[in-house]
Amino acid sequence: MHRTWAIIGGGNGGQAMAGHLALLGERVRLFDVFSDTVNAISRQGGIKVTGAVNGFGPLEFATTDMGQAMEGADVVMIVLPSIYHEEMGRNCIEHLRDGQIVFLHPEASCGALAFKKLLVEAGNTADVTIGAANTLLYSTRIITPGTVDIFGVKHSLYMAALPASRGTRLEEAIGSVFPNFTLCPNVLYTSISNNNAMMHPAPTLLNVARIEAGQDYFYYTEGITPSIGAFVEQMDDERIALGEAYGFIMKTLRKSYFDMYNSGDMSESDSLSALCKKVVAYREIKAQKTLRTRYVLEDVPYSLVALQSLAKIAGVSTPCIDAVVQLAHGMLHGELDEGRTCEALGIAGMTKADLLRYVS
Amino acid sequence: MHRTWAIIGGGNGGQAMAGHLALLGERVRLFDVFSDTVNAISRQGGIKVTGAVNGFGPLEFATTDMGQAMEGADVVMIVLPSIYHEEMGRNCIEHLRDGQIVFLHPEASCGALAFKKLLVEAGNTADVTIGAANTLLYSTRIITPGTVDIFGVKHSLYMAALPASRGTRLEEAIGSVFPNFTLCPNVLYTSISNNNAMMHPAPTLLNVARIEAGQDYFYYTEGITPSIGAFVEQMDDERIALGEAYGFIMKTLRKSYFDMYNSGDMSESDSLSALCKKVVAYREIKAQKTLRTRYVLEDVPYSLVALQSLAKIAGVSTPCIDAVVQLAHGMLHGELDEGRTCEALGIAGMTKADLLRYVS
Repeated sequence: MHRTWAIIGGGNGGQAMAGHLALLGERVRLFDVFSDTVNAISRQGGIKVTGAVNGFGPLEFATTDMGQAMEGADVVMIVLPSIYHEEMGRNCIEHLRDGQIVFLHPEASCGALAFKKLLVEAGNTADVTIGAANTLLYSTRIITPGTVDIFGVKHSLYMAALPASRGTRLEEAIGSVFPNFTLCPNVLYTSISNNNAMMHPAPTLLNVARIEAGQDYFYYTEGITPSIGAFVEQMDDERIALGEAYGFIMKTLRKSYFDMYNSGDMSESDSLSALCKKVVAYREIKAQKTLRTRYVLEDVPYSLVALQSLAKIAGVSTPCIDAVVQLAHGMLHGELDEGRTCEALGIAGMTKADLLRYVS
Repeated sequence: MHRTWAIIGGGNGGQAMAGHLALLGERVRLFDVFSDTVNAISRQGGIKVTGAVNGFGPLEFATTDMGQAMEGADVVMIVLPSIYHEEMGRNCIEHLRDGQIVFLHPEASCGALAFKKLLVEAGNTADVTIGAANTLLYSTRIITPGTVDIFGVKHSLYMAALPASRGTRLEEAIGSVFPNFTLCPNVLYTSISNNNAMMHPAPTLLNVARIEAGQDYFYYTEGITPSIGAFVEQMDDERIALGEAYGFIMKTLRKSYFDMYNSGDMSESDSLSALCKKVVAYREIKAQKTLRTRYVLEDVPYSLVALQSLAKIAGVSTPCIDAVVQLAHGMLHGELDEGRTCEALGIAGMTKADLLRYVS
């Protein structure tokens, strides 16, 4: 059974998603704020996809009118950097109708909780299911508006429903099209399964000297030096402990890399720094030329701060994560959003049991 | 009136101090644990000093016997990295006699408190005055054992007595020979006036990517990039606030640099990063080639942790200082001493008022 999808966001991920879904025979509308993007896609009637997925995906329409995009959609999929979640979330709420799924793809950390708070604040009582992915399905870049290159499609990623009791709706709608998504117990699991929160801010901030000296380097093979890798592994231990506090057995970053990328030369005892040098897909990935990148401006407030919020409620200490948040604020002071604090997530004052009930 | 000085430590600072004091006509003995150093100095009968101070300073003797060095000394001056303070402190306690001054030069942060705790623990009731300097008087390096080059002598540095009521004894003994030392209200002031705590650990740790890539760089002119400088300034704001909490008006790092080094091209509105590029004396100072340097292994546990301890008692928050301590532990985990915690300083459980009474 094909469904109608409103893709909110015509950036790299949104165009890849819209094109791919259309190629799979789904009915797809694309919303973007930029009329240039919308016009380019409208002119050609869809999106050309190259790379790991190939073909021309015809869209129902592209539009700058969110209400039009969302009307009659079964799934409203928000494919935007998390810094835009709140603004776009507010805009889409009035158009939400009973039975719709709002899928945050990805949610960074706690995006679903943040969206739920917007719904409550707006007094919206529509019977909607919020869904969230832990990461983006694709590695992808737009070539020109309407043409995207998909370098890779992840084999395995996570999704969860808020409330968790609506998981079967996500399975039916998302899982039937993309079996790559594994349904998780709840949105705390997808939030804590955020590897970008580990791999983006700390290595970027700890390469500040190179970045500000104008040196080029390869992000993974050169940027994750032994001590930087050791530090990230300690952050990751805090993430794993946070998961445990909520009853989950999480996979470490090192184990993820080993499972995803081992082509025979990796050892389970390799350090993160050593593993990063062995990932073929990472070899050519260059580093940012500034600290003012989404690796910091987005992943600190919308990922690490969200993890701090979950840690606060669970009473888990996260000294390395805290240090990275402070480092970012100290270096870029005044330039970072406050981010996903307990207050911003609408979970301030909850106990761990309260929160687990709230998401279940 | 000339005095008898026992210099404990025959490293760069100890040899410079011993040679300089002897040149000023004082009676000087030098203790070191290394017999090679002691023998070389004994053979030539003293220390040759070159550079900003020049001449041959004849010593009474050099020895590996601490009791011999200390017997009859008016001032026992400990000129050692702070990581050796505890061990050497314990060794010297049994030889301390009524009326002696023990001067920690420098104390890093809270070295005098740490020494006082050793005295109490040892049950030593000799009537001694503990003195402490905030930094080393010299920039200096040993050329060969018995020959030191003094690049520079600081015009202005701080000392304090523990208890503070013994300040006049320091003035008489230390101040009469070295007017460069300004007597401060108490040892909290010298502890908080520790610029190395700001300028050593964070810039070293934040240059980890360069260091571990084997790149050479100049510590001050290249290592203090704009964002690293911004971060250090925020750490320094915490230090200033800590001083305020104890009733002091401290000088910021930037103001110190401006006052010490302005040769007309500095502006009071320059950032720390900009100022560091303008300090002529800093131009040729190369950076460390490893994180395992005293800039981290010493200055984190013996300076930053000590400041954290004072902050804890005063109820002052130090998020940037905390972040640097955590960064060091995360990168070098297991390799750092616990350092000068409240417990190690013998001040755990004190209120701010208690501590101020304790040092006064």
